[in-house]
Amino acid sequence: MEENDSSNLNNDLGLGSKATAGNFRTLNHDGTFNVRKINVPFYERVNFFHSLITMSWLRFFVLVVLGYLFINTLFASIYVAIGVEHLTGVQKASEMGKFMEAFFFSAQTITTLGYGRVAPVGMAANVVAAIESMLGLLTFALATGLLYGRFSKPNAKIKFSNQALVAPYRGINGFMFRLINPQDNQLMEVEVTLSVSMKRENSTLRDFHLLDLERSKVVFFTTVWTVVHPINEESPLYGLTEETALKKDLEFFVMIKAFDESFSQTVYSRTSYKAQEMEWGEKFLYTIKQEKKGIIVDVDLLSQTEKAPLN
Amino acid sequence: MEENDSSNLNNDLGLGSKATAGNFRTLNHDGTFNVRKINVPFYERVNFFHSLITMSWLRFFVLVVLGYLFINTLFASIYVAIGVEHLTGVQKASEMGKFMEAFFFSAQTITTLGYGRVAPVGMAANVVAAIESMLGLLTFALATGLLYGRFSKPNAKIKFSNQALVAPYRGINGFMFRLINPQDNQLMEVEVTLSVSMKRENSTLRDFHLLDLERSKVVFFTTVWTVVHPINEESPLYGLTEETALKKDLEFFVMIKAFDESFSQTVYSRTSYKAQEMEWGEKFLYTIKQEKKGIIVDVDLLSQTEKAPLN
Amino acid sequence: MEENDSSNLNNDLGLGSKATAGNFRTLNHDGTFNVRKINVPFYERVNFFHSLITMSWLRFFVLVVLGYLFINTLFASIYVAIGVEHLTGVQKASEMGKFMEAFFFSAQTITTLGYGRVAPVGMAANVVAAIESMLGLLTFALATGLLYGRFSKPNAKIKFSNQALVAPYRGINGFMFRLINPQDNQLMEVEVTLSVSMKRENSTLRDFHLLDLERSKVVFFTTVWTVVHPINEESPLYGLTEETALKKDLEFFVMIKAFDESFSQTVYSRTSYKAQEMEWGEKFLYTIKQEKKGIIVDVDLLSQTEKAPLN
Amino acid sequence: MEENDSSNLNNDLGLGSKATAGNFRTLNHDGTFNVRKINVPFYERVNFFHSLITMSWLRFFVLVVLGYLFINTLFASIYVAIGVEHLTGVQKASEMGKFMEAFFFSAQTITTLGYGRVAPVGMAANVVAAIESMLGLLTFALATGLLYGRFSKPNAKIKFSNQALVAPYRGINGFMFRLINPQDNQLMEVEVTLSVSMKRENSTLRDFHLLDLERSKVVFFTTVWTVVHPINEESPLYGLTEETALKKDLEFFVMIKAFDESFSQTVYSRTSYKAQEMEWGEKFLYTIKQEKKGIIVDVDLLSQTEKAPLN
Repeated sequence: MEENDSSNLNNDLGLGSKATAGNFRTLNHDGTFNVRKINVPFYERVNFFHSLITMSWLRFFVLVVLGYLFINTLFASIYVAIGVEHLTGVQKASEMGKFMEAFFFSAQTITTLGYGRVAPVGMAANVVAAIESMLGLLTFALATGLLYGRFSKPNAKIKFSNQALVAPYRGINGFMFRLINPQDNQLMEVEVTLSVSMKRENSTLRDFHLLDLERSKVVFFTTVWTVVHPINEESPLYGLTEETALKKDLEFFVMIKAFDESFSQTVYSRTSYKAQEMEWGEKFLYTIKQEKKGIIVDVDLLSQTEKAPLN
Repeated sequence: MEENDSSNLNNDLGLGSKATAGNFRTLNHDGTFNVRKINVPFYERVNFFHSLITMSWLRFFVLVVLGYLFINTLFASIYVAIGVEHLTGVQKASEMGKFMEAFFFSAQTITTLGYGRVAPVGMAANVVAAIESMLGLLTFALATGLLYGRFSKPNAKIKFSNQALVAPYRGINGFMFRLINPQDNQLMEVEVTLSVSMKRENSTLRDFHLLDLERSKVVFFTTVWTVVHPINEESPLYGLTEETALKKDLEFFVMIKAFDESFSQTVYSRTSYKAQEMEWGEKFLYTIKQEKKGIIVDVDLLSQTEKAPLN
Repeated sequence: MEENDSSNLNNDLGLGSKATAGNFRTLNHDGTFNVRKINVPFYERVNFFHSLITMSWLRFFVLVVLGYLFINTLFASIYVAIGVEHLTGVQKASEMGKFMEAFFFSAQTITTLGYGRVAPVGMAANVVAAIESMLGLLTFALATGLLYGRFSKPNAKIKFSNQALVAPYRGINGFMFRLINPQDNQLMEVEVTLSVSMKRENSTLRDFHLLDLERSKVVFFTTVWTVVHPINEESPLYGLTEETALKKDLEFFVMIKAFDESFSQTVYSRTSYKAQEMEWGEKFLYTIKQEKKGIIVDVDLLSQTEKAPLN
Repeated sequence: MEENDSSNLNNDLGLGSKATAGNFRTLNHDGTFNVRKINVPFYERVNFFHSLITMSWLRFFVLVVLGYLFINTLFASIYVAIGVEHLTGVQKASEMGKFMEAFFFSAQTITTLGYGRVAPVGMAANVVAAIESMLGLLTFALATGLLYGRFSKPNAKIKFSNQALVAPYRGINGFMFRLINPQDNQLMEVEVTLSVSMKRENSTLRDFHLLDLERSKVVFFTTVWTVVHPINEESPLYGLTEETALKKDLEFFVMIKAFDESFSQTVYSRTSYKAQEMEWGEKFLYTIKQEKKGIIVDVDLLSQTEKAPLN
């Protein structure tokens, strides 16, 4: 996308010829990019919502628990500073005991539990408790909103075949990979975009090509979809061999766009294949069995292949 | 969608020729598919949100109640293990009575009700109660989020005529079915896609055809819509009779896409017709009455027909 | 949309020629349709969410309050049936007094307030209270979810000129109306669709026509937009006069589609003009003043016109 | 968009020739417009949700706190009017002391905290408390809903280069600017629309032109995107010099549309460049470094340029 990239006019991927020079993988299997931005000011870079919604569940829960501990410790300290004598029912024990009573009182306040065995008396303690309960409602609303947001976030867990194949296809050969939706949620109007990048002859710069597909969109995506790029004379893969593919360090970019019916939202999924993940002269095994009452898909066979001499 | 399907290049449904071989119904009336996936690892298959949002209301409530009982039983056991003497106000009754007091204390804690007649005293009971109240806020947030998510989930309850007709249409014949939105929510920009699959001559394989429609999109969908495929010479239905339609085991796939104004979301609806659900030489009764002040649609007449000799 | 409508092939509005016969208005100013569906079974017709989200605020609050009263009355009766002696702190007053104590205890339970002055003792009262508090969390989640859903529902309150004009336009005449977004939220990529229905000569049936617009889409919608249909020789309005327009009972259908940036959602707005709401030989006053620092739009002038002799 | 704008037929921006006459900036850097609407009735103008969701965080919190104080003051007054003797546990202190007890009791009621040290006795106090707790649930639901709505609102914080350049480009010159997404959330299918407005010769009226781009859409937006309008003979910028650009008071309108993957929503971003923000004969520095393992983008260089003699 830099102005220096004077070729690749038909590269609409948004990845530059020069930027991707080298042998590293640009797009990872899991759909993330090997791109890092430096010198971004904190206030421009940070997106709390994005971080909190995408972090691991473990990390999220640790954060919630730490936040809960921190806020209760903070308020307990305030109650202790005011004096626990302004909390009814506090058992006059050790200093530590008093702090713990204040801590548990804080927990009962911030969750709006309010047993009342311990309750604030007098101005100062009441003011702090009134603030804490309001704050508790607001912060727990954020925490629970994020919890539900994470839980209800659409994630098209599309499963791709481990490898891409070059297999015989209608008298010529085709570049192929397969995908399946392992979940029960229905994906509608699924579109696939396939591109390839390869090194130029005697150069580290890369050229990008959009690859034509036998079929790039399906209305329903209920079984297995074998995406096929026919390697005809117009194909940028035409004439390549296993050896030259490795030499040119091919990287295939796969993008899936679909409408997820359970979530009523558009979802995206990405993956990539490098030259070393291509198998030449293999074809995919058939994954579907018919029964009297319907179609059965054996997902185990998704990446299973058998020999198939190329044309 | 398998690579072996070398025909049907214009089949964009996402259902393969070989996969659908046989006489079973591929798409059910209610829009689900007769497709089952096997050998999918649990962690790939499972989508808790999808399951919880689509299960029946009865099942959802049973799950919520069971979860509530389970979690209170669990925490009651913990309080009993700690010793109910650390809960104030517990009436020293039988073992069972103690457990029930702990159980109800747990319920009052997890809902953040906190009457306080029974309240925790001492470190252990207080720690457990503090954890339980936080956990209660989080789990109830999930439960109530799902409840509202289920309640507010757009579901275009489009009602289709029970049968499809072959009726006279503009000098030739047409394949027709009708639909209506029985609810008061407004559907906008409604699109319909109609396809058919039929067995090949002397083969179990199936061919798919997209069928041209007299009109495939309407801006408003306020009354009844009769979807018409004109059976002209280009139609794959051209020349078929009631008998050959049954022999070729025709299955029609209907997909509706619309924007639901109440929910501000895109919704989909699907149904199918098999050859035995076609009526030949019938036409639909007119469902609309005009009054002085507006249009009245008699939904009862949706599937009502009368004789109409074919051309 | 009935099969009987053999004309109007280019009518994509979804309103039939025969269905709209008569002089009533099909589309109201406020965007609702004069269509009523009869004989729809309750379970097909009802959409609680739609009803609750679109009813008036007054009605919604009355419903919430009635629900609150009902559920507390119900639970109060149960507590009274169990015996108020199982509630601590109940003042042994009259029967009515006991009921009221039970009622308020119920209110404190269902809101998870739980002061504890009155608290359940014994199995039966505790079980009911545990159920009520859980139920309270669930039902209040629905109520508050709906409250927020109503509050955050996008509603493009686009304001249309009271009348449509036939005004001179580029040497010919044009059919015009104006619209403005009176709110501060930004609408993007605004599209307008304009259609007209008119009675056929010597018939009650109606023909529909989509009208070409000088411009049907704008990227930004920041000021006033005058939508113009040029009445050239291709226009179905060509040759019409004020008198014939009334005789043919013209009804113009306006649909606006836009992306509302505040709500990040697509919104629709509709209105209509009948022949008697057309003014012939008038043009709109200019509504925009420039200041040194920006544009000022005088919304008061939206429907203001002045004489302009027709071509 | 006024009917008086008889030129600019291809101006789909929605900004009129006459409306934008003058030297002020129409679109600000931050994407807001210099448009003000007057004489809009309050009930048409107001959109509480929009205001509450877009105001600054400081203002939002001040509003929430003021609301909390107000509502508690109101209810405290009611409890005092009823008589604090109907609240148990109130310490019979000064008038002020009684009011404060009522205030804190109100806070404990509206947050559904309900310690119970102070609790209502008798009809009147109980009725008010039952109302307050229900109201509390509803109003806090609005407040917390808005809090989460603000937090989870998608905002594409796209960063634009400070200046636009006229730089050599493929034998001719090009108009260029750069953009980057400083955050880690992935933007997909990013589209850019570039328009320019300029004063007519000897007139204050303005003409609008949509500018062709070398590339107007990218699938991924992971690094830096240099948007280029080639100044060829078809370009409305053809033949302009730095001097004439200032004289014609050029204003460039940039609109970005993208799909934000974290939020699963479509987002828009806008900015503008005036003639005085153009640099002639400069080109952007290259911002990307390759490492062994990926691409590194130095965001600091976004607006850095170097001399580049024009063609």
